[in-house]
Amino acid sequence: MRLVVIGGVAAGTKAASRARRLDPDLEITIYQEEPEISISECGLPYLLSGVVKDRENLIARTPEDFTGRDIEVLVRHRVEKIFAEDKKLTIENLITGERFEDSYDRLIISTGAKANLPPIDGADLDGVFTLRFLRDSDAIQGHIKKYSPRKAVVIGGGYIGLEVAENLKEIGMEVAIVEVDDRVANAYGPEVAAKVAEHLKEKGVEVQTCERVEEMVSQDSRVRAIRFDGEELEAELVVIGIGIKPCVDLAEDAGVKIGATGAIQVDKYLRTNLPDVWAAGDCAESTNLVTGAASWVPLGDTANQMGRVAGTNAARGSSDDEALEFPGVLGTGVFKVFDLGVARTGLSAEDADNAGFEVVTASVDAVDTAGYYPGDGKTFVKLIADGATGRLIGAEVAGGKADKYVDICATAIWGGLSYPDLVNLDLAYAPPFGPVLSPIIQAASILANEFEKRTEGVRATE
Amino acid sequence: MRLVVIGGVAAGTKAASRARRLDPDLEITIYQEEPEISISECGLPYLLSGVVKDRENLIARTPEDFTGRDIEVLVRHRVEKIFAEDKKLTIENLITGERFEDSYDRLIISTGAKANLPPIDGADLDGVFTLRFLRDSDAIQGHIKKYSPRKAVVIGGGYIGLEVAENLKEIGMEVAIVEVDDRVANAYGPEVAAKVAEHLKEKGVEVQTCERVEEMVSQDSRVRAIRFDGEELEAELVVIGIGIKPCVDLAEDAGVKIGATGAIQVDKYLRTNLPDVWAAGDCAESTNLVTGAASWVPLGDTANQMGRVAGTNAARGSSDDEALEFPGVLGTGVFKVFDLGVARTGLSAEDADNAGFEVVTASVDAVDTAGYYPGDGKTFVKLIADGATGRLIGAEVAGGKADKYVDICATAIWGGLSYPDLVNLDLAYAPPFGPVLSPIIQAASILANEFEKRTEGVRATE
Repeated sequence: MRLVVIGGVAAGTKAASRARRLDPDLEITIYQEEPEISISECGLPYLLSGVVKDRENLIARTPEDFTGRDIEVLVRHRVEKIFAEDKKLTIENLITGERFEDSYDRLIISTGAKANLPPIDGADLDGVFTLRFLRDSDAIQGHIKKYSPRKAVVIGGGYIGLEVAENLKEIGMEVAIVEVDDRVANAYGPEVAAKVAEHLKEKGVEVQTCERVEEMVSQDSRVRAIRFDGEELEAELVVIGIGIKPCVDLAEDAGVKIGATGAIQVDKYLRTNLPDVWAAGDCAESTNLVTGAASWVPLGDTANQMGRVAGTNAARGSSDDEALEFPGVLGTGVFKVFDLGVARTGLSAEDADNAGFEVVTASVDAVDTAGYYPGDGKTFVKLIADGATGRLIGAEVAGGKADKYVDICATAIWGGLSYPDLVNLDLAYAPPFGPVLSPIIQAASILANEFEKRTEGVRATE
Repeated sequence: MRLVVIGGVAAGTKAASRARRLDPDLEITIYQEEPEISISECGLPYLLSGVVKDRENLIARTPEDFTGRDIEVLVRHRVEKIFAEDKKLTIENLITGERFEDSYDRLIISTGAKANLPPIDGADLDGVFTLRFLRDSDAIQGHIKKYSPRKAVVIGGGYIGLEVAENLKEIGMEVAIVEVDDRVANAYGPEVAAKVAEHLKEKGVEVQTCERVEEMVSQDSRVRAIRFDGEELEAELVVIGIGIKPCVDLAEDAGVKIGATGAIQVDKYLRTNLPDVWAAGDCAESTNLVTGAASWVPLGDTANQMGRVAGTNAARGSSDDEALEFPGVLGTGVFKVFDLGVARTGLSAEDADNAGFEVVTASVDAVDTAGYYPGDGKTFVKLIADGATGRLIGAEVAGGKADKYVDICATAIWGGLSYPDLVNLDLAYAPPFGPVLSPIIQAASILANEFEKRTEGVRATE
């Protein structure tokens, strides 16, 4: 029995490892285009500032680590075509140019995602980069070393853009963020986005919102400025962080069904429409557990978890009664920008409104230590609830402990908790760790008051 | 309509505030024996070291704060007797010695808990203290100032004893802990207890386990040593931290039913057996949400939450359909001892075994940052699951971020999550905040493997 895995970052390597654990006799090969596997892509921005010292630190495992577990890893190999009916593949060795054929009994597609580019000329100029692979950070670091740029422009104010802005600022560059939307961190509601914008200002990062980059100005093939709305912003380094898209061409070409999100459609066992073909990680859809709709959330931790499920099911074969389910995602995420942690889970108020929920929200700016204990951390919490049921459907957090508070909310949404649960939730308290009532419970109390008012309103009209 | 609240710390003041919010016309009086109300008792150990600078910092609110909201607060007043049939009380003014009568329509008992004393002579010696009230920390600080003791013994290795030991050590004293059980932190399993013991050793705190203090040695009415098992340990200051017990004499005398735990029995609306009498906080029982059994968990955050429910129901009156429920507790707690955070929720493996569960556990020593990101925090996580259902029923955590990880587990238990949920749980990840897979998910994966082995074991015997 032969398992082939296409793509060797989070989902692919996890799937292969898991399959090996379950079936010592399985033949397993991973094909990977990049020269490295198991890359911690989320760490790339921190290479730019030296917070992460060495690119090798971002390589969690080498091909040799897998060879030791009897998993063949072929890097710099691109799978060119999948022949699903014959369960065959053609592969190009990107170093030698050699092409060859392989076959599989079971196949996992974990081809990942790649950076979006803006629809303007100049993305190929010297000094213009995206940041998705180790070779991208190598290139940016090479450019910085060669030209010592003083002025950088980051196009896009999402979390990658914000992380890149921070890390370039930390090495002394002047940094401006240009965002096409009306706010940075636009996956968040206006309150959190405003806190991010304010924090960037405090840290000396210029922010331009509602601006679409129209042109990259170059000289001698090197970028010199970007132009938008008649304005010109000097730029000796440009990093584009305007999102990513799933790598699905190979799969689509083979007849794998692509979902409305643009990523590979899978069932709850992560099976594609093709027999014995699973998909996992950034190239695949999952289900949003709040809305029940197909959703595309390309994040490293989710990819890892999907890899575990796909690897299990590929090792066991397709029989349903032994198959593991991947239940879905909440879209939980966190990022840091300078000293501010920002996190979300579930739906934003806007998402919830668009999904047809009657939205009830409650927000609190809470201290995140006991008032009398040293430390003056603040945490903003916004809870988003379904007015019809009282159920928590989303949360946004900003503050030093954003990761702590968002994980409580994510777990609460997963467990179907409502505001009366959240008010009474038995969380841990001691003075060194937080206020007597967690910011989550404080926000939940306000939420409970909102629901009380609604009930009173109903009574008043009865 | 007149509401009387007996006891003005966490539950009592919260109940009164909540009742006021819901009913502006209610007459509300709080009787409180101590000179202060709203005391953050959990902060008391930190006064000893000066981490909390000033005792006033531990007083969250003054009687005047409540007067401003039209809530009468009478401190240094002891309620002597409740005449439940007549809905009357007799009260002693502890300053003037004056006695008077009051009446209530609705009554909330929140009389709190007091420190246990060992059954030996000497607890009244100069230099021997418990730590429950502000006057206790005042007395300890007075003793330290007067005698500059160099050697302290803490009797009891629970969280109060450990916090006191840390704070006395921090001001340069030699500190020994004497614990009757075979381990300190004995509410925890042996793994966590061993980590605590090791950490205490690193910090230079002597630990004696399996030792029952037999005698306090004195000279001129001052404690000089404690004696156990033939050994004598010099002690110029002794702090007893061997637990607390609920203050229920007043209630019991009035005919309020006391539960098997020794605390006041209440229903899910926090009603006692007497009409229009509620109980909340450290004097009252609650339901353990895992076992369904009556449980006594005297903690400040729980007291606060119970106060909210009792205050709501007392303000609204006894009609069930408007009453709020207090669902119960998980016994979630956290404490810090020097640099180590220690936390638990739900049942320990021992608790679970005693409660008749078929116990399956999984433990992991995980890093608590991304491997390549600066910081080298470690977190130990032990998950305790019900073998029959796979449901999480308890967790223990030790490490710098114990508070974060235990809150995820507490919320998971509250939501009834099982190991397949925990493995796939969508928690927040970014390199500055933790490893790609949360220590909780790592432990859950091991737990899943344990359950897999059991299933395979079943298959093998079929």
